[in-house]
Amino acid sequence: MAEKFVSERNLRFLLYDVFDIDSLTQYPYYREHNREIFDMVLDTAMKIGRDLLRPYFQEMDKNPPQYVDGQVKVHPAMKQFMKECGEGGWIGMNAPMEVGGQQLPLMLSFACKFIFSAANYSAMVYPLLTDGAAHLIETFGTEDLKKIYLPNMYSGKWQGTMALTEPQAGSSVGDIMTTAEPTDEGYYKIKGQKIFISASDHDAVENVVHLMLARIKGAPPGVKGISLFVVPKYRPAEDGGLVFNDVSIAGLYHKLGYRGSPITQMSMGENDDCRGWLVGEPNRGLACMFQMMNEQRIDVGLGASGIASAAYYTALEYAKERTQGRPLSDKDPSNPQIPIVRHPDVKRMLLYQRAIVEGSLSLLFQCARYADLERVLEGEEKEKYSMLLDLLTPVAKSYPAEMCILSVSQALQVLGGYGYCDEFPVEQHYRDVRIHPIHEGTTGIQGQDLLGRKVRINGGKAFDLFVEEVQRTMDLAGDQSRLGPYVKALGQALEDLKVVTGYLVDLAGRETPEVFLADATLYLEFFGIVSVAWQWLKQGIYIVRRLDNHPGGSEADLFNGKFYALRFFFSYELPKIEGLAERLSNNDGLTVEMKAEYFSD
Amino acid sequence: MAEKFVSERNLRFLLYDVFDIDSLTQYPYYREHNREIFDMVLDTAMKIGRDLLRPYFQEMDKNPPQYVDGQVKVHPAMKQFMKECGEGGWIGMNAPMEVGGQQLPLMLSFACKFIFSAANYSAMVYPLLTDGAAHLIETFGTEDLKKIYLPNMYSGKWQGTMALTEPQAGSSVGDIMTTAEPTDEGYYKIKGQKIFISASDHDAVENVVHLMLARIKGAPPGVKGISLFVVPKYRPAEDGGLVFNDVSIAGLYHKLGYRGSPITQMSMGENDDCRGWLVGEPNRGLACMFQMMNEQRIDVGLGASGIASAAYYTALEYAKERTQGRPLSDKDPSNPQIPIVRHPDVKRMLLYQRAIVEGSLSLLFQCARYADLERVLEGEEKEKYSMLLDLLTPVAKSYPAEMCILSVSQALQVLGGYGYCDEFPVEQHYRDVRIHPIHEGTTGIQGQDLLGRKVRINGGKAFDLFVEEVQRTMDLAGDQSRLGPYVKALGQALEDLKVVTGYLVDLAGRETPEVFLADATLYLEFFGIVSVAWQWLKQGIYIVRRLDNHPGGSEADLFNGKFYALRFFFSYELPKIEGLAERLSNNDGLTVEMKAEYFSD
Repeated sequence: MAEKFVSERNLRFLLYDVFDIDSLTQYPYYREHNREIFDMVLDTAMKIGRDLLRPYFQEMDKNPPQYVDGQVKVHPAMKQFMKECGEGGWIGMNAPMEVGGQQLPLMLSFACKFIFSAANYSAMVYPLLTDGAAHLIETFGTEDLKKIYLPNMYSGKWQGTMALTEPQAGSSVGDIMTTAEPTDEGYYKIKGQKIFISASDHDAVENVVHLMLARIKGAPPGVKGISLFVVPKYRPAEDGGLVFNDVSIAGLYHKLGYRGSPITQMSMGENDDCRGWLVGEPNRGLACMFQMMNEQRIDVGLGASGIASAAYYTALEYAKERTQGRPLSDKDPSNPQIPIVRHPDVKRMLLYQRAIVEGSLSLLFQCARYADLERVLEGEEKEKYSMLLDLLTPVAKSYPAEMCILSVSQALQVLGGYGYCDEFPVEQHYRDVRIHPIHEGTTGIQGQDLLGRKVRINGGKAFDLFVEEVQRTMDLAGDQSRLGPYVKALGQALEDLKVVTGYLVDLAGRETPEVFLADATLYLEFFGIVSVAWQWLKQGIYIVRRLDNHPGGSEADLFNGKFYALRFFFSYELPKIEGLAERLSNNDGLTVEMKAEYFSD
Repeated sequence: MAEKFVSERNLRFLLYDVFDIDSLTQYPYYREHNREIFDMVLDTAMKIGRDLLRPYFQEMDKNPPQYVDGQVKVHPAMKQFMKECGEGGWIGMNAPMEVGGQQLPLMLSFACKFIFSAANYSAMVYPLLTDGAAHLIETFGTEDLKKIYLPNMYSGKWQGTMALTEPQAGSSVGDIMTTAEPTDEGYYKIKGQKIFISASDHDAVENVVHLMLARIKGAPPGVKGISLFVVPKYRPAEDGGLVFNDVSIAGLYHKLGYRGSPITQMSMGENDDCRGWLVGEPNRGLACMFQMMNEQRIDVGLGASGIASAAYYTALEYAKERTQGRPLSDKDPSNPQIPIVRHPDVKRMLLYQRAIVEGSLSLLFQCARYADLERVLEGEEKEKYSMLLDLLTPVAKSYPAEMCILSVSQALQVLGGYGYCDEFPVEQHYRDVRIHPIHEGTTGIQGQDLLGRKVRINGGKAFDLFVEEVQRTMDLAGDQSRLGPYVKALGQALEDLKVVTGYLVDLAGRETPEVFLADATLYLEFFGIVSVAWQWLKQGIYIVRRLDNHPGGSEADLFNGKFYALRFFFSYELPKIEGLAERLSNNDGLTVEMKAEYFSD
């Protein structure tokens, strides 16, 4: 396995140059921090990635969780990792210090999540879900709930989960049927089933806390009758101990990849003794849950990018070591073979990966920056960054989720036959990364969220803000002559996006929602490509600044390489919007009119 | 597992309507056959697929070949299948009756290979390789070799293989080092190693016959010093028995998918007792081997399409049964949920698969028709079809190889979380299908073959013939008003292809081969899209004819559905050439100039 799985220098370039994390320390919330602390956190995250996660990457795949006597046993490394996550403050990195968090910028925690995901994605999910679940209790829970759960979750002793999906309610979350019956004791009695719940039971922690959607008896049907509950596996008893809360595991899923993380089917209240505690207001549960869901969606983007980063470095190491063939202009078979990294088609495959991984990562940091600014600002400014984050969430989930599959596939291709064999880790990356367009809302759902809601709400305010943001980057880049062609290309792409968006939004007023949203997935793809082009131009400003200093050695290699990745994105990836624009400007309702029975053969 | 894995009606439509297989029976070579025989062969192939192959599809994946005491043990079903393949004439279907073949059209054998691949791709490879290896002996072998090997191979008693790859020579086949030392006994002594050899050892047959490339001692370096040998695992002895021929298995590969087929590392001559018999002339082995390699390349296209077909029908069955959500224009949560096949975005994913699978299959049948005509015609006509087949081989290999990965991925996506779990077979299809851009020449190699050789040889004659073929289809389709928009779109695409090809061929004279071929992979993709659009238009002529007869019931559904798939291809897939054309018209040598050291971080 290649030693390298992420570029620390690229992470620092994004954090310090492009997204200027230092500037956040001017705000009171982040005042305790400085560059030294950020560096230390990054160094420690790399050490954990190298020492606690990466060594178990293949092992956890080959020895997936086992379901034994109704309990799930996971790899022993997870116990140590969760302990470290708790003790080292890796859960609740962004939470206020007053509730046991580290109060660190989201940008920094994104960098750490990226590192952990690259080292061992399955492992990463354990603290990730715990963090999101705890944050949900922190935001909407009662003081009692906070007091009981937060310390145990932020310390890594208790696992958190997000429990939405049911057999009849996957993408259609409004159809959940798990019930909550009020009692006079302050809790609800929960009954029902959940499926596909990640990290929902295992022996690396002493308890599992499900943030669960259920329906209070008598609630209205659909999304307006859904409430949010804390449903622990063991509930705290009066004596300070823990009592089984009638949450049973019905089975484990056997999966294509992502095997180190246990995904289960759960059954609540089989003995009529499952208790849940309401979080937030009755029937307003989905709105609360969206806080965690949005965080998890962005984490999916980070996970996908992390996996693709690790696969890229495996492919790169292989390409440098593997000799095969000669330059096309050298036909003399008596000359020695050359490392394949020198073949243009292999460089194309490597640049493709780099363009996607580093472009996705930049978009994710952009989201983190918006989240950080939303946190520290007030009023209109806060609102602005909140809207931008909201708009970009489905994009920052789906672009990496979809494109990193293709990126890992190219990594596998670089290794040829070896890539298809399990001596090398890329085939596992290929299996692991395929989960991302599915969980936390499929790509289809993200497309409908983007086009059906996000670009239209508030009279298209968020979209206008996005256009301004892109324009600002173009203005800044305009001062650098080397970036001229890319400013121009992005400007054209932005115009295309505006035209297509205008056309579609106009359609919404004239056509059925089916016709309007028929190609929402393609629109999402379009939006993703333009967004990542924007991010490459943004990086370009700082790449050129570095190159203008005439660096030498590895610094020169890094930024020259990044500039080629930028050029690659504009030259090979951005033109893909042309075909998409053509289809998106066609309102023939083809997939709407196609009848189900025409699929009879 | 869905019962259906291929559409028999679509196969018959392609064979009988679009490619008019009956017309071949006017030629002496095929005179013994008729529609009744073709139907019987198809029916029997379906029966074998259903009864002998499909039941073991998942089992063979979960119980892959085992390496025990230097021998490879495969699933017992393979013994029965190879026996059936021999007795039923499935090996050597196209070979002349005089050597024990069935003398059937390639078009028909393609249909059968597609069926078998869809049922169980790993199993299909056993007879496929035997057929290709036997055909090679039939074409280039001595009478002695034919007498010994052909009956044993066509009867399925002996397995055939294609043994090219060595540790230092994968894509660079000219670098093989296996040696052949002449003796006075009419055989050569073989010494060396081969890796990644499919079906190269197993207990479902009594012997394995390797068609092996090696270098006669003293031969010139590179491709001009390669010779072809028959190297059996057991060689026939004077007493009529078999003697071990010093071909040892050094190990089995553990693979992402395609697990039912044993891929091994082999070592020849460890005890200095491995004998090989020359096939064809010394140092002309690669030219001979290309016969088998080209057949195998097209078989890769069939394999990929077959796998994607099976995945499609699993997704389709699921989409019809699974209820989830409501029409977008029906927000009432008290209404029942609908089958997901009614959601436009799901129909989009299904149409995508159908457009790729049925489009690829049509392109493959087009190649089969050229091969059949090449076989029965003489002179200039023969030459013409030979050139067309040659030109389209890399396209018919790579378009399905690459696109069927995406097609299966969409099948998996239709199943959502269930697609990611091994209860359903799609995750296996997803793993199996990933081999295709790798084996029998990677996609990168195919691109260089197409642009670097095929479109340029004979002053671009083959390309001109291709343009004529597409033009002829457009002329025929021009009579049908419903096809007007697609004739026009294909005409434009063909013009674009001509322009891009002209630009690139011109570049070849001005630039280094590196710059000229830097984007050959993209050119291959471009060529593939235009070719499949052509095939959809060609199908369109016959689809419209059927619809013009006002069919009812399932006939109407089939052809209405196919017409939507045609429209889908033109509307969603063909526009992708625009972005490709833009990049292909750019001669900046980006991937050539990118330095290896810029990948340092």
